[in-house]
Amino acid sequence: MHIKKQRLLTPGPTPLLPKALHAMMASDVHHRTQDFQKIYRQVLGDLKEVFGTKNDVLPLVSSGSGAMEASISNLFRRGDKVIVCTAGKFGERWVAMTKAFGLNAVVLEEPYGSAVPAQRVADALAANPDARGVFVQASETSTGSSHDVKGMAEAVGKTDAIFIIDAITGLGTMPLDIDGWGLDVVIGGSQKAFMIPPGLGFLSISAKAMEFTKTCDLPHFYFDLKKELKSAQNGESSWTPAVSLIISLGEALKYIKELGMNKLIDNAQLLAKATRAAATEMGLELFSPGSPAASVTAVKSPQGMDSGVIVKGFRNEFGMIIANGQGSMKGQIFRIAHLGYFDFADLFSVVGALELVLNANGYAVPYGKGVAAVQNVYAEAAFPKVTVGA
Amino acid sequence: MHIKKQRLLTPGPTPLLPKALHAMMASDVHHRTQDFQKIYRQVLGDLKEVFGTKNDVLPLVSSGSGAMEASISNLFRRGDKVIVCTAGKFGERWVAMTKAFGLNAVVLEEPYGSAVPAQRVADALAANPDARGVFVQASETSTGSSHDVKGMAEAVGKTDAIFIIDAITGLGTMPLDIDGWGLDVVIGGSQKAFMIPPGLGFLSISAKAMEFTKTCDLPHFYFDLKKELKSAQNGESSWTPAVSLIISLGEALKYIKELGMNKLIDNAQLLAKATRAAATEMGLELFSPGSPAASVTAVKSPQGMDSGVIVKGFRNEFGMIIANGQGSMKGQIFRIAHLGYFDFADLFSVVGALELVLNANGYAVPYGKGVAAVQNVYAEAAFPKVTVGA
Repeated sequence: MHIKKQRLLTPGPTPLLPKALHAMMASDVHHRTQDFQKIYRQVLGDLKEVFGTKNDVLPLVSSGSGAMEASISNLFRRGDKVIVCTAGKFGERWVAMTKAFGLNAVVLEEPYGSAVPAQRVADALAANPDARGVFVQASETSTGSSHDVKGMAEAVGKTDAIFIIDAITGLGTMPLDIDGWGLDVVIGGSQKAFMIPPGLGFLSISAKAMEFTKTCDLPHFYFDLKKELKSAQNGESSWTPAVSLIISLGEALKYIKELGMNKLIDNAQLLAKATRAAATEMGLELFSPGSPAASVTAVKSPQGMDSGVIVKGFRNEFGMIIANGQGSMKGQIFRIAHLGYFDFADLFSVVGALELVLNANGYAVPYGKGVAAVQNVYAEAAFPKVTVGA
Repeated sequence: MHIKKQRLLTPGPTPLLPKALHAMMASDVHHRTQDFQKIYRQVLGDLKEVFGTKNDVLPLVSSGSGAMEASISNLFRRGDKVIVCTAGKFGERWVAMTKAFGLNAVVLEEPYGSAVPAQRVADALAANPDARGVFVQASETSTGSSHDVKGMAEAVGKTDAIFIIDAITGLGTMPLDIDGWGLDVVIGGSQKAFMIPPGLGFLSISAKAMEFTKTCDLPHFYFDLKKELKSAQNGESSWTPAVSLIISLGEALKYIKELGMNKLIDNAQLLAKATRAAATEMGLELFSPGSPAASVTAVKSPQGMDSGVIVKGFRNEFGMIIANGQGSMKGQIFRIAHLGYFDFADLFSVVGALELVLNANGYAVPYGKGVAAVQNVYAEAAFPKVTVGA
């Protein structure tokens, strides 16, 4: 009733880091000056540090999908055979994109809520020794499922193929040892765990993948990784950069470095664990119980309740924006995000609100039951030696 | 652990309305232009509407204490007898201020956690027929107690004295019928229910009080209500206004008008009710059980626990800034605020955090118990027909 603060609690755009938001006000700087070069160089260095790689990490003025496209249009040849894993809406985007560029996609599909096993990738590579690339989502945002990136990397690493990971919601929510595991292209987006508004895509690229640029014959101009890499070496971007977003990103990267990327990942994983505990305690079913992602938890709506009713209840009663299912999952699931600037206080609010919305719509759950599950997970992690009153 | 969003949950400064915060960026306007006059006139009109009075409401570039001083230095004569109610740190400020200006203060004191009964004011006025003013706090922020402003106004209205109300945390948290009850001077501050940063004091003034300016002999220059009133009639301020705050206030007043001042008051009252229910459910004692304010709820720390431990726990574990007791109440109580831009999602967080902090410091309370009390108060108000699962 009455005051309802608008709270953006979706798996992207995610809650904005206030300092990063406010920093955008200092955008009155020209992008071809030493002042901006200094900022840009710092961002390039911090991106590498936060990605945890010696590979170059290139920011692109695009959404994450733009960076996904760049990884195809800059590296492959028309008709190249590639292996594409799909178990959700974003896997389907890899399929559609590789096909749009005339690649020969061998599609490894699993049902929504599942993950493609690493062994299937190994088998597909064995069956298709001419495959030049493997595509996957680290975290499939549409289902709240995660893939075994490390296991897949082991299989790909034994071949001449390159491994391209959409880590748009994977970065900052799960360990991704780019150099150690040999992840050739890792893709991120600004409006995810990076805590700033949409408009920037990121892409780390290995030496092995850079070799592919030499033989690539697919048309591209705006997304030109060779050109972008050369510009980056001069502390510049190829085209006009999104100045406000780069400046904002600088603040966010500073925060993430202070926090520690590992802590950011732990944070998402602990929130996801607490959310799963709360859902189970409330008698709700998880949509991806076998391979749950830490970026977002997908929960099945109770029998007979359209999940849109829950999403609407959150918005109307509490001003909270949470995500419905996408595509055929719409109405079946709702999704609670954990990636980026989320904390336990947010989760107390979300679960407290969920209990009220469920009861108001005919699904009976005692007040405080899910919240207590969240508190227990917090207490186990923060106060392991404290005995709690019961 | 890990991510802790800084949440300002004190009874002033209060959480900022995002639109009002962002509006400050449009401060590149000169204060002696028609552009600014338009903004200022709108703010003056909206302040009257939100205060709910036909009296003029003057913004001053000062904290609330500046507006308090203005109500003394502009209206009284050296040696004037006045009746001053005090039951907390802000009552003591009235006492100190009236004395600093050489007034003859008849002090009506009640213990912290209590309120001065209206009858005591009536009796004091009868015993002191030469009293020219009565001073009180509508809401005593230091103790979380409120005064019977209406009852006192009835007593003062029968005399030639004027009634001066520090409503700095009263405005927007309790009904104050300025014209109907005859409240001569009502004082507010920007960083309270007005949802913007500190820096502006407000003061509504009746015709009866304006008459007092004619006989006033106390020295004043910066706070000159006659001059300020004349400036306001021309859509200006006497001195350079705090442009960013006036522009921010304009956005906040627009929001409050859309919400409705009565809804803002209901919001604080319902949050306060839910907080009292949660505290009681957790076995905690209220500091002002007899006359609780809706601006802030003061809760006694459990036996043997310094309330500083709780305040520190909120900050260290959750990044939440809540208020300790002031003066001799420090260490004894902690205060949970409800005035201005607070909602139920905030309260789920606060109570969820409180349960964790209490348990971690040796006070056993079952997780979710206080949160459930908050949810019950919400549900009774929002979903009166829903039966809740138990």
